[in-house]
Amino acid sequence: MTIKALFFDVFGTLVDFRTGVAREAESILGAAGHKLDWGAFADAWRTEYQPALEDVRAGRRPFCKLDVLHRENLDRILPRFGVSGLAQDAARNLNLAWHRLPAWPDVARGLARLKRRFLLAPVSNGNISLMVDLARHNDFPWDAILGAEIAGDYKRKPRVYLAACEAFDLPPAECMMVAAHTDDLMTAAKCGLCTAHVGRPNEHGPGIGETAPKAPVDVAAADLEDLAAKLGA
Amino acid sequence: MTIKALFFDVFGTLVDFRTGVAREAESILGAAGHKLDWGAFADAWRTEYQPALEDVRAGRRPFCKLDVLHRENLDRILPRFGVSGLAQDAARNLNLAWHRLPAWPDVARGLARLKRRFLLAPVSNGNISLMVDLARHNDFPWDAILGAEIAGDYKRKPRVYLAACEAFDLPPAECMMVAAHTDDLMTAAKCGLCTAHVGRPNEHGPGIGETAPKAPVDVAAADLEDLAAKLGA
Repeated sequence: MTIKALFFDVFGTLVDFRTGVAREAESILGAAGHKLDWGAFADAWRTEYQPALEDVRAGRRPFCKLDVLHRENLDRILPRFGVSGLAQDAARNLNLAWHRLPAWPDVARGLARLKRRFLLAPVSNGNISLMVDLARHNDFPWDAILGAEIAGDYKRKPRVYLAACEAFDLPPAECMMVAAHTDDLMTAAKCGLCTAHVGRPNEHGPGIGETAPKAPVDVAAADLEDLAAKLGA
Repeated sequence: MTIKALFFDVFGTLVDFRTGVAREAESILGAAGHKLDWGAFADAWRTEYQPALEDVRAGRRPFCKLDVLHRENLDRILPRFGVSGLAQDAARNLNLAWHRLPAWPDVARGLARLKRRFLLAPVSNGNISLMVDLARHNDFPWDAILGAEIAGDYKRKPRVYLAACEAFDLPPAECMMVAAHTDDLMTAAKCGLCTAHVGRPNEHGPGIGETAPKAPVDVAAADLEDLAAKLGA
């Protein structure tokens, strides 16, 4: 392996979306007088994610930013939790919860080490402004923001991985996809990229996440500092 | 003005392409035994730039990266300077001179100050990998790489400025284009962006460059540190 660039999945792999969304929902909806199971609310919002992406991937609707899909999904689930008549400003602010998610504790240090040796970019389904805000919030030192918005389609469509390699003028074999999700890595591998799995045992709540890859990968790491060590960075 | 993002022209505004290209050409072509007027060679290469972009802007050919156009232009001018039979590796390396251009001395400090207050992105005709290499070479702290490759067209087409605003989810009035070229700023202003001129009196050689804007702009600065001061950063 001669790796020159690392591409990162973000939701779940770098940031703890369940805790972050639950906390923001509690802050924003709680202030509006609502009381609900905040973890279940975060789970419900995230559950709408893949079907919304699939509409784009399958060509049933043109590409639009994840922020737009998040907002549609939010409007869909709010009534299920008994929330109606939420002020537009509050809904807009709640939708930006995804722009303010907290990183897992190893990420900023791990990325700083990896940056000394590799080009770094997110290859996420999140839109550019969402990635930029997360980077500012969590000190992610990206060289560029790649991913769905550049490609005009959503993972796991091969185009998203290949567009990232092309943006850096690198053959896929010189790029490594880093994710806490085996299916993301398997699609990247089919496109010719190298793969690194990062364990995130608590992604979907305590003890609910991939601790180890479910299929062979090039590198399996406990976290990003472990990945930096294993890649000699 | 409520400016949230600053967009930067790069060639000429942030980096000294004439000195950089002349130096790289002397190093690479000189090593191959050639002796020529290196400044004139840099000027000739750059003179091919606008006509090549115009072929794309006018729709006579599909969008392709600036690296490709630079290479075509290089192959076109080499014979004019009596250079023939240059090894492919040397030609490829010389074409990457544009990835290794030196910044003007105020740029790294100015951008570091501006980053505390604004989102920062290049909105250049250079491709993503070129911008990433220049950033690594010169410590440009970009939030994202925007510009021609994202837009699929070249400045001065309005799409390039508007695509940058859209990527950051900002109305044009909250974005400011920063350039040493009045025409770049006038097109940005027509798209609704604010404008800042930076003087680069030596862009095309000693004393040959825009010291001051040739038309009204929102801010006129001597360099990026002066711009930071004028924008309160």
